Amino acid sequence: MRCDTLWHNAHLMTLDDASGGLGFVRGGVLAALDGRIVHAGPAASAPAFDAAERIDCQGRWISPGLIDCHTHLVYAGNRAGEFEQRLQGVSYADIALAGGGIVSTVRATRAADEAALIAASLPRLDAMLAEGITTLEIKSGYGLTLDDEARQLRVARQLGQLRKVEVVPTFLGAHAVPPGHEAQAYINEVCAVMIPAIAAEGLAEAVDVFCENIGFSAAQAQQVFEAAQRHGLAIKIHAEQLSNQHGAELAARFGALSADHIEHLDEAGITAMRAAGTTAVLLPGAFYFTRDTTLPPIQKLRAAGVPMALATDSNPGTSPLTSPLLAMNMAATLFRMTVDECIAGFTREAARALGRQDRLGRLAAGFDCDLAIWDIEAPADLVYRIGFNPLHARVWRGQPA
Amino acid sequence: MRCDTLWHNAHLMTLDDASGGLGFVRGGVLAALDGRIVHAGPAASAPAFDAAERIDCQGRWISPGLIDCHTHLVYAGNRAGEFEQRLQGVSYADIALAGGGIVSTVRATRAADEAALIAASLPRLDAMLAEGITTLEIKSGYGLTLDDEARQLRVARQLGQLRKVEVVPTFLGAHAVPPGHEAQAYINEVCAVMIPAIAAEGLAEAVDVFCENIGFSAAQAQQVFEAAQRHGLAIKIHAEQLSNQHGAELAARFGALSADHIEHLDEAGITAMRAAGTTAVLLPGAFYFTRDTTLPPIQKLRAAGVPMALATDSNPGTSPLTSPLLAMNMAATLFRMTVDECIAGFTREAARALGRQDRLGRLAAGFDCDLAIWDIEAPADLVYRIGFNPLHARVWRGQPA
Ligand SMILES: [Zn+2]
Ligand SMILES: [Zn+2]
Repeated sequence: MRCDTLWHNAHLMTLDDASGGLGFVRGGVLAALDGRIVHAGPAASAPAFDAAERIDCQGRWISPGLIDCHTHLVYAGNRAGEFEQRLQGVSYADIALAGGGIVSTVRATRAADEAALIAASLPRLDAMLAEGITTLEIKSGYGLTLDDEARQLRVARQLGQLRKVEVVPTFLGAHAVPPGHEAQAYINEVCAVMIPAIAAEGLAEAVDVFCENIGFSAAQAQQVFEAAQRHGLAIKIHAEQLSNQHGAELAARFGALSADHIEHLDEAGITAMRAAGTTAVLLPGAFYFTRDTTLPPIQKLRAAGVPMALATDSNPGTSPLTSPLLAMNMAATLFRMTVDECIAGFTREAARALGRQDRLGRLAAGFDCDLAIWDIEAPADLVYRIGFNPLHARVWRGQPA
Repeated sequence: MRCDTLWHNAHLMTLDDASGGLGFVRGGVLAALDGRIVHAGPAASAPAFDAAERIDCQGRWISPGLIDCHTHLVYAGNRAGEFEQRLQGVSYADIALAGGGIVSTVRATRAADEAALIAASLPRLDAMLAEGITTLEIKSGYGLTLDDEARQLRVARQLGQLRKVEVVPTFLGAHAVPPGHEAQAYINEVCAVMIPAIAAEGLAEAVDVFCENIGFSAAQAQQVFEAAQRHGLAIKIHAEQLSNQHGAELAARFGALSADHIEHLDEAGITAMRAAGTTAVLLPGAFYFTRDTTLPPIQKLRAAGVPMALATDSNPGTSPLTSPLLAMNMAATLFRMTVDECIAGFTREAARALGRQDRLGRLAAGFDCDLAIWDIEAPADLVYRIGFNPLHARVWRGQPA
């Protein structure tokens, strides 16, 4: 079999396992041609390869490149001072009165041009790449005007050109009511003006809504989903983080790719998500950082067979986290997710949450050759250790990255 | 003023502040000669320097090099599999029955020669150094025989020769009862045989005891402290982590450098620690990893003026953490410690916990020139971000490291 590169003397986490496991192959080989995997499996039963390059992995483990399916990575400003004030006992209300909170990120992001947004976001992206990320979703949502949202999404696209990574842009105009606006009037503008324009320029693949008692109502989310569908955009939702608004159930009825957070999800929501094939995206970084005490219904999701993905939710207000490995450890430690669930959550299931399950997140013939090569003894090492990065190499579309 | 190196165009966290703050200097300079700081302060009021080398810090922040005052970094074996089993619902008891838990680390550490222990420990040490650590304490406690404990301590010393870092070795023979032994007989051996031999060979500066209902009693800890004092070794204690054994109070009466963990510390313990000048070493990584719910009495320690240090407690069983920055974030997020307390906890107060407060942990004339230079906008960035490493450069004894 002809290939550009053959990785041999490796153990594989193929994730190519119908029963939901990691699909281990001890003593495996992986071959790529033209950026795609052409073979992944045990060395013992592999075909003969005619390889332009052979890489001896010296017993390391190869997983699919990690996929972060929920981030707010592109923004300007710095909320560390606000964090410091809260530790000194200043209330959220007083911080908001002083212009802090999400409004401060909106203000700084609006004031930043594309170059400034790129400069602010690249170190965060590079931290992700250093831990093996090869695909990540980036949401807008700190502009809250068409121009400012579009600039965030253009910057997201540019980040994907500046680094060897696939960026999946999501329009989150319905993130917050912009200062000086009324919620329903703003949602009307999101639906009538912003979604059509974003779709026409091809700036986003999906539309997301922050559905919450402090965000937008389920009725407003439905209005956004209807506009998204009219313009051919996929649907995602921030749902049931602080209360049960039945947003996940609604989104599932619209065939949503994912419902994210879902700490307060109920049985009806689980049933609807299972029926629609909507992925649950769990965000332990936000759970940790906000000291949430309501766990997402992991056991019920597991029992129902709802796919579970994990993500960093990287954002300045509730999850200033740029480590997918730490998100895995938090999912295990705080949510009691298993090692297999944690690794699948950043590979196969994250690909599903982005509608890319036929191309990313597994080591299988025909899939894009995005790899993370790890200096570990066993897959559990990725989840068990805290604040340690055993990445040996990252491969994107068959190339060292 | 003559110096080898002058760092200029920098902001300083001097920690040289009698009122307990960070001692900020915006627009500062720092000069070193023969590995020591000879000047640190505002550029505006600095003397003229005759510097062999001038380093433009371009507005970056300089802090003292970080000090991790409580680690169990030297061990062999891997407990990731045990972590995985627990997530699958296997009980601690069943894992212990199958030879897991601390016994498995003892077995692996006893079986490892010096070279193997160094190879296992260096990646953990390097992860620490990459985040600006310039001094760290390393405890024995996985050998539990004189030879095996001594080998751990020799490896700790060698790590300090292999890297530009000061290693402070602590003898923790009283970590656990070795398999097949009886607690009191083992403590007698620790006191009569092991402590004298360790002291004679100069392998440790201090002696530590795990005082707990599942460890050693306060009476046994007292026996160990008396032996330590006879042999001129300083005293530390693992105390009040799971229950109140009054170990911290006891240790303070013996003039202990530190009492560590102390989730269940009472008023009498706080009073005794204050009177003795014993530092409270808080370990949020273990709190997080074991899902502890009893917070250490931070507000009472703060009110009493007991010095508070932070550390990673890096160990395979309850805190597989090698990130001091993440320990700071956990101390803020989980313990509600302030930014100033978190940074002082890994510098000035950690130096105090190691009896080095006159030489390490501050940017002040006469102190060793151990520095961490950070790509941050403000000190709070070190604590606020999760899983991000903004270290620009590490300096040890005046040299790039
Ligand atoms: Zn989010
Ligand atoms: Zn410890």
